Amino acid sequence: MAKDFITRKENYSEWYNELVVRADLAENSSVRGCMVIKPYGYAIWEKMHTLMDNMFKETGHQNAYFPLFIPKSYFEKEAEHVKGFAKECAVVTHHRLRAKPDGSGLEPDPDAKLEEELIVRPTSETIIWDTYRRWIKSYRDLPILCNQWANVVRWEMRTRMFLRTAEFLWQEGHTAHATKDEAEKEAKKMMEVYATFAERYMAMPVVRGVKSENEKFAGAVDTYCIEAMMQDGKALQAGTSHFLGQNFAKAFDVKFLNKDNQLEYAWATSWGSSTRLMGALIMTHSDDNGLVLPPLLAPIEVVMIPIYKTDEEKTMINELAQRLQKELQAKGIKVKYDNDENTKPGWKFNEYEFKGVPVRLTLGARDLKQGLVEVFRRDTLAKENHNVENIVSYVEDLLKDIQQNLYNKALKYRQYNTREVNSWEEFKVEIEKGGFLLCHWDGTTETEEKIKEETKATIRCIALDAKEEEGKCIYSGKPSHRRVIFARNY
Amino acid sequence: MAKDFITRKENYSEWYNELVVRADLAENSSVRGCMVIKPYGYAIWEKMHTLMDNMFKETGHQNAYFPLFIPKSYFEKEAEHVKGFAKECAVVTHHRLRAKPDGSGLEPDPDAKLEEELIVRPTSETIIWDTYRRWIKSYRDLPILCNQWANVVRWEMRTRMFLRTAEFLWQEGHTAHATKDEAEKEAKKMMEVYATFAERYMAMPVVRGVKSENEKFAGAVDTYCIEAMMQDGKALQAGTSHFLGQNFAKAFDVKFLNKDNQLEYAWATSWGSSTRLMGALIMTHSDDNGLVLPPLLAPIEVVMIPIYKTDEEKTMINELAQRLQKELQAKGIKVKYDNDENTKPGWKFNEYEFKGVPVRLTLGARDLKQGLVEVFRRDTLAKENHNVENIVSYVEDLLKDIQQNLYNKALKYRQYNTREVNSWEEFKVEIEKGGFLLCHWDGTTETEEKIKEETKATIRCIALDAKEEEGKCIYSGKPSHRRVIFARNY
Repeated sequence: MAKDFITRKENYSEWYNELVVRADLAENSSVRGCMVIKPYGYAIWEKMHTLMDNMFKETGHQNAYFPLFIPKSYFEKEAEHVKGFAKECAVVTHHRLRAKPDGSGLEPDPDAKLEEELIVRPTSETIIWDTYRRWIKSYRDLPILCNQWANVVRWEMRTRMFLRTAEFLWQEGHTAHATKDEAEKEAKKMMEVYATFAERYMAMPVVRGVKSENEKFAGAVDTYCIEAMMQDGKALQAGTSHFLGQNFAKAFDVKFLNKDNQLEYAWATSWGSSTRLMGALIMTHSDDNGLVLPPLLAPIEVVMIPIYKTDEEKTMINELAQRLQKELQAKGIKVKYDNDENTKPGWKFNEYEFKGVPVRLTLGARDLKQGLVEVFRRDTLAKENHNVENIVSYVEDLLKDIQQNLYNKALKYRQYNTREVNSWEEFKVEIEKGGFLLCHWDGTTETEEKIKEETKATIRCIALDAKEEEGKCIYSGKPSHRRVIFARNY
Repeated sequence: MAKDFITRKENYSEWYNELVVRADLAENSSVRGCMVIKPYGYAIWEKMHTLMDNMFKETGHQNAYFPLFIPKSYFEKEAEHVKGFAKECAVVTHHRLRAKPDGSGLEPDPDAKLEEELIVRPTSETIIWDTYRRWIKSYRDLPILCNQWANVVRWEMRTRMFLRTAEFLWQEGHTAHATKDEAEKEAKKMMEVYATFAERYMAMPVVRGVKSENEKFAGAVDTYCIEAMMQDGKALQAGTSHFLGQNFAKAFDVKFLNKDNQLEYAWATSWGSSTRLMGALIMTHSDDNGLVLPPLLAPIEVVMIPIYKTDEEKTMINELAQRLQKELQAKGIKVKYDNDENTKPGWKFNEYEFKGVPVRLTLGARDLKQGLVEVFRRDTLAKENHNVENIVSYVEDLLKDIQQNLYNKALKYRQYNTREVNSWEEFKVEIEKGGFLLCHWDGTTETEEKIKEETKATIRCIALDAKEEEGKCIYSGKPSHRRVIFARNY
């Protein structure tokens, strides 16, 4: 357990907040609800960005960029959409400041009041579909497969770094299609891309599912999602992909001539994932010693720390370190040799352990005389001595092993904390223990809302692989054909 | 000359606007002054982003992310800075919309008025130095070398795509140092990074210089810049790097304990370049046939277009194309084979020519029977037949040649349009012809402003390599020790 560091058991929520700050990932800014993402945190997000961006491009998408501001009237055009976002948005009303008459500072200049207010985008369906109207005339213009990396603002009342901030970074894909079928396939495909990303790179198992009416995106026909389980048993939605039907095409009058030469509204999807994934990553793997990172997302995969007494030993170790560094880099492994003489080895051990560096090699003069290097793996905290001769290939395998081990551990945790619940009495007891509860539900929004009111649990999703099974709703007793996942959530 | 396309001579300004739209780079959005960057334009910007980002990292910088919003009071803290930006900024005043009492739509909710207005960042010195106060305690915390890729908003009254838009994308570096000397070196180093980027990748020669008092950044002690000459003889500032002295450290009270254990204000730099570089790129190389791209920034470097009549020819050409594609890709060359059967070769020729693809290979059945491929280079519009056998290495060399040729051509143009002017009468005549005028100037803001009033010309910079030379100010006749560059500018 790291010194002066709170444990998950003591206070999970404080453990998270403190970890984010102490691992140098982010900090709260002086602007309400907005965070500063620090270089170490940003380096992890950059890795996510690059890997996801490649996956989007491999599935045929291109990046573009659309305006930050949305005119209020656009915002109003899709009824469900505006209901979902109007209550928490940043509104720009002026385009100039002037000196206050009493000289005490600046104020918005009344002569520079905008004719129409602008909303800082909380998501970009409206401004993008306003643009697509100009791009789409014929089925030959379709599909359009665009993505953008951007910042968005949602004026949340209670914020937490990465998990829920007023401004956050994300990507949002917006596609237009000639047929309903093609758009539905796209929405499912992108959910699968998110799931693959989460499992392969974040080492975070997810449930692929579809949202209930109550939980879906404001303006969507169907919302597909991936849901992960955090170490406190709560669910975290880690990416969503929406089949939007023709809702936005109708709101923005986007019609195209189809192959039969008839005018038709275009079919849409949108899909997004955000810096919230950072929160998910932290809460899936980290422990009471600080951050734990899967190697594939670690800015530093291997840190090497020297221990020596004499100048002779120092020279020998520096030479070895340089050789190992080259050999590891040649295998594409991010390695850092920390030979800063202003800090002690013990301080370095703590520092890199807390920052979640997957592997630490201690190059100690004494061990090296016996041809040994100390290898420490962050995931299990296990230390062992290993022969320096084949250390490079050993480390290469070890990193793969750590990546897999983190995934397996998280999967085991989720499996252990997922259980079937068959009665309302049982539900009320079990929900307090956390985890995913697989329950029959009558399919009504009414029941879902009552359950939420009484227990704070919501339907996270209807898993796509949920098997058909006759049963009775835990709350209403009405018939149900499959179990859904209830949980408390972030 | 492309069909229905205006020439530079007819109307340079319209030529630019039309080119941006027709080459699918960007378009105006429905939001005043904001553009949509389309996928083809964004792909070029992405290349710039990646290449510059690598250069920043190689010079020791890390990326981070700071809030979009700046509290009004922060904005006010540095007097010069606020003067420079308060008159054109987007002001957020509310955090919620509500239904209008008469049901006719939405309005800012008076109950959700912010206590303090937030400014959408026009640049981030203030919010970043507010953050650095928490990061900097001792000389050991220095230097801090951060960069961020972000969007910023400046409410310009007259906007033009890429050159001047209300919202634009950019990077802004913000560094903090323990000594004045180190900060000054950093500011000059980053100017040099920009110059290298412009010359090596954009094939755009630049003058490295320092701004006059009048033209420097609001809040800077010195502003270093790179200035390029566009094809209409006007100057375009393509990147600036500011030595900020202790101005922001004082405004935000950022002190550190130096090696002598005394409190001292930190020294700062900031440096930025933006999507404006896209405008510079376009206006440096493009012609009356559309966009011309240097190969190192082209999303497609080589396009291959088949021409055949029989199925047999088609099969033969497809096989050849696939082989060439693989071989070119193996050399890291971005190549596209356009065998779309819905469009004719002639249409494709025009399309890729207009979009500035550096090299076109026509795989014609008839030529191929003689072992020949038609090679078209976009920069000179020259066509020639080349042996298919060694076409790959030929193309590889050709791309390098095009990159160099574009640079040479632009340099020649600038040299031809740069001249010494020694009297006010001469100046008034010469400035109408465009180009850079090298003139003696008495060093006063007063003279600079009068020249600007009478001729719209400003001092673009005092070139760093300007030689010492005694002379008399063209306007006031007072003594001067070196010539400066006057020009009209974007």
